[in-house]
Amino acid sequence: MPESASSRQGQQPARESFGSRLAAAMAARGPLCVGIDPHPQLLADWGLNDDAAGLERFSLAVVEAVASLAAAVKPQVALYERHGSAGMAVLERTLAASAEAGVLSIADAKRGDIGSTMAAYADAWLRDGSSLAADSVTLSPYLGFESLRPALDLAAQHGRGVFVLALTSNPEGQSVQHVGGRDSVARRIAAAAAAENQRYSGALGSVGLVVGATIGSALDDLDIDLGPVRGAILAPGLGAQGATPADLRTTFGAAYPTVLATSSRGILAAGPSLAALRSATEETLAGLRED
Amino acid sequence: MPESASSRQGQQPARESFGSRLAAAMAARGPLCVGIDPHPQLLADWGLNDDAAGLERFSLAVVEAVASLAAAVKPQVALYERHGSAGMAVLERTLAASAEAGVLSIADAKRGDIGSTMAAYADAWLRDGSSLAADSVTLSPYLGFESLRPALDLAAQHGRGVFVLALTSNPEGQSVQHVGGRDSVARRIAAAAAAENQRYSGALGSVGLVVGATIGSALDDLDIDLGPVRGAILAPGLGAQGATPADLRTTFGAAYPTVLATSSRGILAAGPSLAALRSATEETLAGLRED
Repeated sequence: MPESASSRQGQQPARESFGSRLAAAMAARGPLCVGIDPHPQLLADWGLNDDAAGLERFSLAVVEAVASLAAAVKPQVALYERHGSAGMAVLERTLAASAEAGVLSIADAKRGDIGSTMAAYADAWLRDGSSLAADSVTLSPYLGFESLRPALDLAAQHGRGVFVLALTSNPEGQSVQHVGGRDSVARRIAAAAAAENQRYSGALGSVGLVVGATIGSALDDLDIDLGPVRGAILAPGLGAQGATPADLRTTFGAAYPTVLATSSRGILAAGPSLAALRSATEETLAGLRED
Repeated sequence: MPESASSRQGQQPARESFGSRLAAAMAARGPLCVGIDPHPQLLADWGLNDDAAGLERFSLAVVEAVASLAAAVKPQVALYERHGSAGMAVLERTLAASAEAGVLSIADAKRGDIGSTMAAYADAWLRDGSSLAADSVTLSPYLGFESLRPALDLAAQHGRGVFVLALTSNPEGQSVQHVGGRDSVARRIAAAAAAENQRYSGALGSVGLVVGATIGSALDDLDIDLGPVRGAILAPGLGAQGATPADLRTTFGAAYPTVLATSSRGILAAGPSLAALRSATEETLAGLRED
């Protein structure tokens, strides 16, 4: 199944690479990704029920408000899965609405497995024709970066992308990511992403990393240089979670031009008014540009 | 939402702990978990279409055939997700059918996130009343064992369980799991599970680990002692993937009595005949008992 769509087109990729499309969107609009996080409390604040109908109104409102402003939107898959198959159906419609509205999507799923099971996850999120297909998906590499191979290859084939968890700001993440001293787990993931992006030409390859906006000096501490990665750095934590645009520049240094800052609650709290969501998005973008 | 079900019952757990229920099932039936892996090729071999209807016939047939024989069944979530929300609806019916048929379920989802997002995954898989609720779920700890806290606590509260990825047999897994020498990532995960299981009385706590059946000498090499874990060791790889019952005993040593061996293709290849699936399951169980 994964091959069928491109086979019909003689192995031509259906679209430009994800890295190229994301670089163009970041250049045109600014380096902002808006998280679509329908948390129960946010649904209540918006006057919506904590059910599939509430989820759908929330999600489609965010897409409508920010699709022409942000470089990307990032639905948080857990918050749809929490509503079972009905929630996943809302996610399908949210991803379709994002594509129709012309904004890139990042399905924040943090999936990871091995072999034919990993191929099935790739099939779900990165295959042309899949109802859950997104422009990109986040992946978790506990089973090794190379275990993600089916997704890396399917993404390349279909002009889609991945963001691999590397270094996060939650304190308990250190017990895995920082292990290994000068050859830490996080450093290995960054090196593997850099190697993988050599298959891509252009400013950005299609293999990004997830690196928390509030990691402080961890990149220096672990001697991790994100420059050679040449993929987008998805950095959650702008705004409500504590990082300012200036923090991002300090934290990421020379890699700052590849950072795609993610703000969720800082923008979503402005809803349900579409105008207020737009203003919050524009303010956040202005903050990123000024800096 | 996570608290509501047990709040209505005055904080009484709705059922015995997962560890106790699993220990009883393993004692009564033998230490076998049957994987429900509706891979495209298996669907074709069974004469079924690679769609939601085929998925459902496959899944319900496996449940019907093995529910009275195996200690647990383990649907592979990726293979349902691959069919989008329609596939997830089939998974809901498969989990419900397992519960009705009296066999414990392990949703092999390998989920992992932090904070309120991890709480949402816990809500999806471990909350009474969730359409995707399973007796237990597999989790991935790249963000740190402690990042799984919302699932650990909700599982304890609702008499459900988790299996945390620790040490897998795929060669690329070493680049994360083996890092750190005598204080490796995998060893830290095992130690954290052991500490967590101290909240449970009885033979088995409700926090299990996933450790590949074909890891060879890795436990010795990394100085990992699974004895103190006192949780079930879910060991995929019996049968078609290469491990024999004798291998399990050699690999796991003193921890062997806590091993829940998983066989998927070795048993599923016998279908679609229910009688043949039952025979294959009984043969696998006999092999485990003889050894």
